Amino acid sequence: MKIAFIGIGVMGFPMAGHLAAIGHNVSVYNRTNEKALSWAAMHDGRVSESPRLACEGADIAICCVGDDPDVEAVVQGENGMRAGLSSGAILVDHTTTSATIAKSLNEKLSNDGIDFVDAPVSGGESGAKEGRLTIMCGGTQSAFDRCGPVFSAYAKNYQLIGPSGSGQTAKMVNQICIAGLVQALSEGIAFGQANGLDMQAVIGAISQGAAQSWQMENRADTMIEGKYEFGFAVDWMRKDLRICLEQAGQSGVDLPVTSLVDQFYADIQNRNGGRWDTSSLIERLRLP
Amino acid sequence: MKIAFIGIGVMGFPMAGHLAAIGHNVSVYNRTNEKALSWAAMHDGRVSESPRLACEGADIAICCVGDDPDVEAVVQGENGMRAGLSSGAILVDHTTTSATIAKSLNEKLSNDGIDFVDAPVSGGESGAKEGRLTIMCGGTQSAFDRCGPVFSAYAKNYQLIGPSGSGQTAKMVNQICIAGLVQALSEGIAFGQANGLDMQAVIGAISQGAAQSWQMENRADTMIEGKYEFGFAVDWMRKDLRICLEQAGQSGVDLPVTSLVDQFYADIQNRNGGRWDTSSLIERLRLP
Repeated sequence: MKIAFIGIGVMGFPMAGHLAAIGHNVSVYNRTNEKALSWAAMHDGRVSESPRLACEGADIAICCVGDDPDVEAVVQGENGMRAGLSSGAILVDHTTTSATIAKSLNEKLSNDGIDFVDAPVSGGESGAKEGRLTIMCGGTQSAFDRCGPVFSAYAKNYQLIGPSGSGQTAKMVNQICIAGLVQALSEGIAFGQANGLDMQAVIGAISQGAAQSWQMENRADTMIEGKYEFGFAVDWMRKDLRICLEQAGQSGVDLPVTSLVDQFYADIQNRNGGRWDTSSLIERLRLP
Repeated sequence: MKIAFIGIGVMGFPMAGHLAAIGHNVSVYNRTNEKALSWAAMHDGRVSESPRLACEGADIAICCVGDDPDVEAVVQGENGMRAGLSSGAILVDHTTTSATIAKSLNEKLSNDGIDFVDAPVSGGESGAKEGRLTIMCGGTQSAFDRCGPVFSAYAKNYQLIGPSGSGQTAKMVNQICIAGLVQALSEGIAFGQANGLDMQAVIGAISQGAAQSWQMENRADTMIEGKYEFGFAVDWMRKDLRICLEQAGQSGVDLPVTSLVDQFYADIQNRNGGRWDTSSLIERLRLP
């Protein structure tokens, strides 16, 4: 299959690599050209000079960039993906964006006969490298089905949630669940440490019961030790939470703890922790 | 082994049953005598007329009652456990209490040559029935070791966390982790439902990743459906959170989300949801 991959960053680099590894004909584009060149050198792939050129003749075109404005530019810009794609192609967006832009792009692209699938991922850099991402999709069943051979290259779990925008909204549910959960775990660990408990023993005891979570299993040890130089950055979490809180406002849902945790993450940014993993939330609670 | 079991309630009834089932000589006492009688009829056991009488000659005496004042009364009262126990015995408290009362009882009982183990449990009624509880213990290694044959009758996981009071403090960590986590899950589900998502599909997609939790796996379905007539009651959670917040105040730890969720549970009580499962927190967020 001829595939265009736009955005060869922390996630896109290994994802596009998996596609090349199973024999797809992959053309990549990246704003910083050096990364695209180093990807192409590793994977015997092709680098294009614009998203438009990468997309010409592609069956499926994928983007995985930063934020709504990046997606807008890379898709709709003068040398953007839309300009290169032909009727019958599919455009997959792995960026975490607002549902608004997903629905808007879907509408515009459908006028060109192009199917759009909003397909934000979770699982982070390690999930991308290991081909174990989760993908939450919004779009038509037929477009989703045609993406199967692509998604299976780097995801262990990909699901069609509903119509256009549903993938993004599902990703927001994911981030909302994580935000309050990480704060709860932070409060539990900070409380236990302040009271002199052997927290390794406590986590060993409670991690098989009703307090168990992926975050507890994968982050408690490093939170206890105060290590955050890995994982999903606070800066990115704040971007995602802003999208969640905007959509909550539009849909009249009250998210009191998510709002509060967003502000707590602002505190972490103010302590120069913007690049730290989201589990750094506990640092606010440490006794001085 | 001769065992006294004081408090044949939702938890104590099956726990004492497991002890009788493996051949221990169990004497029970319950404030409401009918429950003790029905337990004895089922388990061919013996009912005592007071905690003191149940404890006379016991190797290990267990209590599992409601709150600090209940423990105080049942242990220190005129016909209490302490009055019946002999030097060399062990008193195990499975009640979730403050660490303060655990340390205080430990000190008083040690004057009588009695070992005290604070041993709050998690896993709920189903965990007690299935013999799959978790027990977090505070006390000496030797007393903890001597409790092994008892704990193994109804727990899959029991650990000595540290000195007297540590079991209670570890249980507080557990409840703190749960409180914010359930609120986060509530916000996620309420947000998804308000935005028209197929929440079964969303949970299916996100429950293998960083948002995963025991609560998501075991409570999301019933939260989506609005069913709460089971599980761990809001009234009991508020009792536990009061203990957590008191100890947090004493130890100078800030628990902003736990405090907030405690107030949210007060809202649920005000809606006559005191007997509902803790997952009923989502009801506050439902659109009217």
